[in-house]
Amino acid sequence: MPRAVDRDERLDLISDAVASVASQRGFDQVTIRAVAEHAGASTSVVTHYVASRDELLRLAVRRLVARRRADVTRVVDVADDGGAAGGAAALRAVAEWAVLGAPEPDHRLWLALVTGAQRDAVLRDELDAFNDWWDGLLRDLARRTTADPDEVGRMVDAIDVIVDGLIVTGFDAGRAWSSRRRGDVLTLLLAALGL
Amino acid sequence: MPRAVDRDERLDLISDAVASVASQRGFDQVTIRAVAEHAGASTSVVTHYVASRDELLRLAVRRLVARRRADVTRVVDVADDGGAAGGAAALRAVAEWAVLGAPEPDHRLWLALVTGAQRDAVLRDELDAFNDWWDGLLRDLARRTTADPDEVGRMVDAIDVIVDGLIVTGFDAGRAWSSRRRGDVLTLLLAALGL
Repeated sequence: MPRAVDRDERLDLISDAVASVASQRGFDQVTIRAVAEHAGASTSVVTHYVASRDELLRLAVRRLVARRRADVTRVVDVADDGGAAGGAAALRAVAEWAVLGAPEPDHRLWLALVTGAQRDAVLRDELDAFNDWWDGLLRDLARRTTADPDEVGRMVDAIDVIVDGLIVTGFDAGRAWSSRRRGDVLTLLLAALGL
Repeated sequence: MPRAVDRDERLDLISDAVASVASQRGFDQVTIRAVAEHAGASTSVVTHYVASRDELLRLAVRRLVARRRADVTRVVDVADDGGAAGGAAALRAVAEWAVLGAPEPDHRLWLALVTGAQRDAVLRDELDAFNDWWDGLLRDLARRTTADPDEVGRMVDAIDVIVDGLIVTGFDAGRAWSSRRRGDVLTLLLAALGL
């Protein structure tokens, strides 16, 4: 199916160009023209797949997010043996992956997405959809560590704060902390949750 | 001294306009023209005080940061009785102030500053200067809670992660968590640090 492969490759190329422009200059600067230039293509290649800037953002963010969801799902599957301790092990593994395993450009893209979602409804919708999925995943795992629903809620909130905090401190400080430094803080704070 | 008062008021007006434009649209959109428009003044009012966009950013961010530093210093002074427990009480109070006490526009401005500092050397310098001061303050307080320098480092890092995380999760989620929700997570995670 050469045509299908070609289509998928082109959509990846476009999505990666959106990611690059957004990470480097912010989502405000993501336009069909800027993305085509970055991908080394004509704007008609981009407009062959998307009719508007909104469609471009939606398509690209969905594809980028889908990849990360697949990564997270794999991490959970490896860590979770299905037993009583599997929930805690998977929560720890997901937090470690997000903070230490995800590549630096992903962190940059996430910050651009959080910032951009303040003023763009398409980005807001896509970020909400990802967060719903992410929090649902964490909640299901947390429920296997405690029967108290309040404790489940606090655990999910705390993991979100720890992960978001460890990602954003790198940008706050101007460069990412070393893996060891992030790992030390992660271990310390996850211990507070019994993880 | 009416002229001095006038100057100070005008600089506050300009700084507040920079904060508004940056919070709403990002620092990329902060120009002398945009700031003048937002302040309801002519560009010559702005250029009377600053000769360039860089100077405008530097002046405004310094003034805005100086106000927050004064706030934090007051919070520390109230919480710290100078005794053995004063260091821990002040650390807790500073974290609570940053997460619960600072007004929402400050959180928005901070996110804009962290994002903008990725591509603007003036913002990077000003954020670095603030962070040096902030981390020095936390370190001095943390040293009064433990003699172990590694533990001091981890405590300061962890407070930075908790505070940054609790601020950014609100933007990640699309709206700020309730004070109670933030307070619960803050209490849980500070407890891990013995605070």
